[in-house]
Amino acid sequence: MTIRLRVVCPDRPGIVAAVSGFLFARGANIVHADQHSTQERFFLRLVATLSDGDSPEGLRAAFEETARRFAMEWSLSQPDPTKPVGLLVSRYDHCLLDLLWRFETGELEGRAALVVSNHPDLAGVAEGHGVPYHHVPVEPGRKGAAEAHMLELLVGRVELVVLARYMQILSPEFLEAVAAPVLNIHHSFLPAFAGGDPYRRALERGVKIIGATAHYVTEELDAGPIVDQDVARVSHRDTVDDLQRIGRDIERVVLARAVKWHLEDRILVDGPRTVVF
Amino acid sequence: MTIRLRVVCPDRPGIVAAVSGFLFARGANIVHADQHSTQERFFLRLVATLSDGDSPEGLRAAFEETARRFAMEWSLSQPDPTKPVGLLVSRYDHCLLDLLWRFETGELEGRAALVVSNHPDLAGVAEGHGVPYHHVPVEPGRKGAAEAHMLELLVGRVELVVLARYMQILSPEFLEAVAAPVLNIHHSFLPAFAGGDPYRRALERGVKIIGATAHYVTEELDAGPIVDQDVARVSHRDTVDDLQRIGRDIERVVLARAVKWHLEDRILVDGPRTVVF
Amino acid sequence: MTIRLRVVCPDRPGIVAAVSGFLFARGANIVHADQHSTQERFFLRLVATLSDGDSPEGLRAAFEETARRFAMEWSLSQPDPTKPVGLLVSRYDHCLLDLLWRFETGELEGRAALVVSNHPDLAGVAEGHGVPYHHVPVEPGRKGAAEAHMLELLVGRVELVVLARYMQILSPEFLEAVAAPVLNIHHSFLPAFAGGDPYRRALERGVKIIGATAHYVTEELDAGPIVDQDVARVSHRDTVDDLQRIGRDIERVVLARAVKWHLEDRILVDGPRTVVF
Amino acid sequence: MTIRLRVVCPDRPGIVAAVSGFLFARGANIVHADQHSTQERFFLRLVATLSDGDSPEGLRAAFEETARRFAMEWSLSQPDPTKPVGLLVSRYDHCLLDLLWRFETGELEGRAALVVSNHPDLAGVAEGHGVPYHHVPVEPGRKGAAEAHMLELLVGRVELVVLARYMQILSPEFLEAVAAPVLNIHHSFLPAFAGGDPYRRALERGVKIIGATAHYVTEELDAGPIVDQDVARVSHRDTVDDLQRIGRDIERVVLARAVKWHLEDRILVDGPRTVVF
Repeated sequence: MTIRLRVVCPDRPGIVAAVSGFLFARGANIVHADQHSTQERFFLRLVATLSDGDSPEGLRAAFEETARRFAMEWSLSQPDPTKPVGLLVSRYDHCLLDLLWRFETGELEGRAALVVSNHPDLAGVAEGHGVPYHHVPVEPGRKGAAEAHMLELLVGRVELVVLARYMQILSPEFLEAVAAPVLNIHHSFLPAFAGGDPYRRALERGVKIIGATAHYVTEELDAGPIVDQDVARVSHRDTVDDLQRIGRDIERVVLARAVKWHLEDRILVDGPRTVVF
Repeated sequence: MTIRLRVVCPDRPGIVAAVSGFLFARGANIVHADQHSTQERFFLRLVATLSDGDSPEGLRAAFEETARRFAMEWSLSQPDPTKPVGLLVSRYDHCLLDLLWRFETGELEGRAALVVSNHPDLAGVAEGHGVPYHHVPVEPGRKGAAEAHMLELLVGRVELVVLARYMQILSPEFLEAVAAPVLNIHHSFLPAFAGGDPYRRALERGVKIIGATAHYVTEELDAGPIVDQDVARVSHRDTVDDLQRIGRDIERVVLARAVKWHLEDRILVDGPRTVVF
Repeated sequence: MTIRLRVVCPDRPGIVAAVSGFLFARGANIVHADQHSTQERFFLRLVATLSDGDSPEGLRAAFEETARRFAMEWSLSQPDPTKPVGLLVSRYDHCLLDLLWRFETGELEGRAALVVSNHPDLAGVAEGHGVPYHHVPVEPGRKGAAEAHMLELLVGRVELVVLARYMQILSPEFLEAVAAPVLNIHHSFLPAFAGGDPYRRALERGVKIIGATAHYVTEELDAGPIVDQDVARVSHRDTVDDLQRIGRDIERVVLARAVKWHLEDRILVDGPRTVVF
Repeated sequence: MTIRLRVVCPDRPGIVAAVSGFLFARGANIVHADQHSTQERFFLRLVATLSDGDSPEGLRAAFEETARRFAMEWSLSQPDPTKPVGLLVSRYDHCLLDLLWRFETGELEGRAALVVSNHPDLAGVAEGHGVPYHHVPVEPGRKGAAEAHMLELLVGRVELVVLARYMQILSPEFLEAVAAPVLNIHHSFLPAFAGGDPYRRALERGVKIIGATAHYVTEELDAGPIVDQDVARVSHRDTVDDLQRIGRDIERVVLARAVKWHLEDRILVDGPRTVVF
């Protein structure tokens, strides 16, 4: 039986010795470990196989004392290829298609449990992959009702929400109530172009590189912890259509990496930033 | 004799035929040409060798009529490996060293005519490469006097000014009076971090990519036409020192490319953007 | 009516003037043009709109004289969003899925006319996108028969053949008889690993970058003109599975770019190399 | 006092617990650690500060028993900014200049102890940086004598040899006798072009990406463990000169990273490959 332990705590001597000693004494075998220290904060992720008689629950209970001693924020999880993920989309299909395919190929450790959209357009795509599709329109002035409906569909049923080009802003109340991490993908440029129609403005400014950023969603719009980023070179020869096409290719790959890493418990969030092991 | 012709004008039928027909009739041979159209604007750069009896002056006078007909902004130049370039620096030496080396190897079509700095630190570097170094301190409240001194050193003596990590903001009056294009390099991130200490803030935010942008300097700070950009991946393992080191490596290469392209007359500026051929 | 003209010929004075003068005299308007010269060889691609009374056939006939004068290899084509493309696959679906999606979104100027495979596995994928699927097994010692069958399916019915991870080597006879360009995608590494199981060997050698190359297929295996390449960084932390996954992401994007450029008549082949405009 | 411990050994349970427990018991504090397992092989690098009364020698002696128990290949080192490095060059100066600058800025944990060259050309460069320059010509048929002379200059005087574009092949006897690791940089392409004049051949083949590989030198030419690689996009617009210039920019950065990582004891060599922490 394989477990994954993630730890974030103040840095001080003896953490690794304590954790590895604890696991060794219990007969667990560390098969992979990553750690990082900023001198102030200490980050650890390890994968271990338990001894025959042991269980995650037993280990979790026994680890409490060590965790308390070092003031750890920690979590202990198990790989689970059936982990349910909720996908939110609007009208663009590139991220949705890409994620559905990666779930099917087994690249992503989980399953697409449902798709929720404020538009009906992509119902065929989801259902063609055997995934239930829920059309929850967001009518002007009635966003609260829409979010309430979405919460019914999601809460307790998914362990991760992925905004696969979902173009509505989620309220702080929704983010709190949904009780699962929410990943988002958005375009990003050097320099940044906030606001509408960014590709046209990037073109007008003659940018030479465009990119995309995957991040956790927090109350502050587009300011949540960054999980991954990537870029591509562009030139004056690229039209707005070209930028959008190139942008789509970056977005789907960056979002897929973020989802993959999240599902493999590789991401440690520490305030405004992530450490990805 | 080789000439370079750059043209920006409203797009309409017949421009290429008119220009190439003009050159062919005059016995000039086009050895390289690039053109681009946004449908509204037309951009052309071509390199041609003149016929034996012809001269750039003669060609220039004869081309006036064609240029007027198409409402062209245009320039006709000749390659000149002795084109004088003024380098402005503060304390960081990486861009200065890199440019001096590239001038010496012949990579850059020009010569380092002088170095101006608000600090004395890099005098040895410049003079070691045989380039005069002028220390023009910028004292609080006396920036006008410093800029006046710099103008004396630069005006009429250089055809390009390169801010090779010059950390003072140049006034609109200086930019107008210097009467030469000014290239600058600055760091850039996804998302952007304006203001001080950007590498520390990028680290705190956990960015995964850092970059640099070379641009022409205009009155609006850091908003001039972008010439080139590049990036590198970073991770939580990189310290602020690492980010600065990696940033330096990007900065010097991006700035060198911008200087090279400028000196080869490859850059066509059109309002807030560039077309680089 | 829009036409595209591609020209490769020995470089000498007057080509551009002749071509643009010819088009201007005929009332055609050049909307886009790219040219390149190696001093020995001259390359030109231009897009023009014809005058009202003109036709591609008329232009073609009239251009013959100019083409002969400069010893041009040339072609004149028209954009055609229904251009039929044949896709050959084996068992990997990532390139096939990606191309089918791009045909549907209109990114690619053409249509998937049929899929041919030496395995039955991907029939559902093709048919789910409304594209006929032909299973042509290649039995040991009976490759000639299989290729004959494939030629029946392809010859005269497709204008481009794309090997979207088709794992059989095509005979020189097939390549000649198919009478359409054939594009292929294969992995590539620094340094190269020819032969079987390249990802495992790349891992054992500790490569830090993997890549993919799209190229035209010629008689000499994997040595045809390169159309595009791309790479990604990898590390010791990546397993063979990771390398394959990352490799798939590169392959599908690089192959899609090559197909897109081919269908837009952007690629000029000159012996062992391409110029992509 | 800071030490670095590097370990490569067969993977089995208890290694981390044993090492971290050993260090904790001795009062040492782990400030940084990286580990990696291929399931068969285990790799560990850690940085620790010793307790006040402890010494590297004491730690080394005490660790012997643990090392033996797990059949470790291991080394224990200390950061030393004066570590002597020997640089071998021929005529190209870009890597030499770059390394000398990085030694001076403190980016590299060591010092340039001497430069050896088979040409006299770069004497001024080395001496301008205060580094002794030894001209050891390699005459036809007298390579053994040249290598013997170089060994006199290097053996026991440097802890690392860097071939900063040294164009002579070193004999197996030299590599054995020099008794220090030797790092090299060479161009690399997709696909690879072995043999002479690679940039011209890459251009003729129309490659779209060029690169460079830093590796340890072993008896088998250019087949030693890869330390780092990087690439840049090129196009038909780039001449052989451009490819060489772009190649130089890649080479100096990749070689500098390899030297930096080596001097910081970040590289663990395991047969034909490296793990870089």
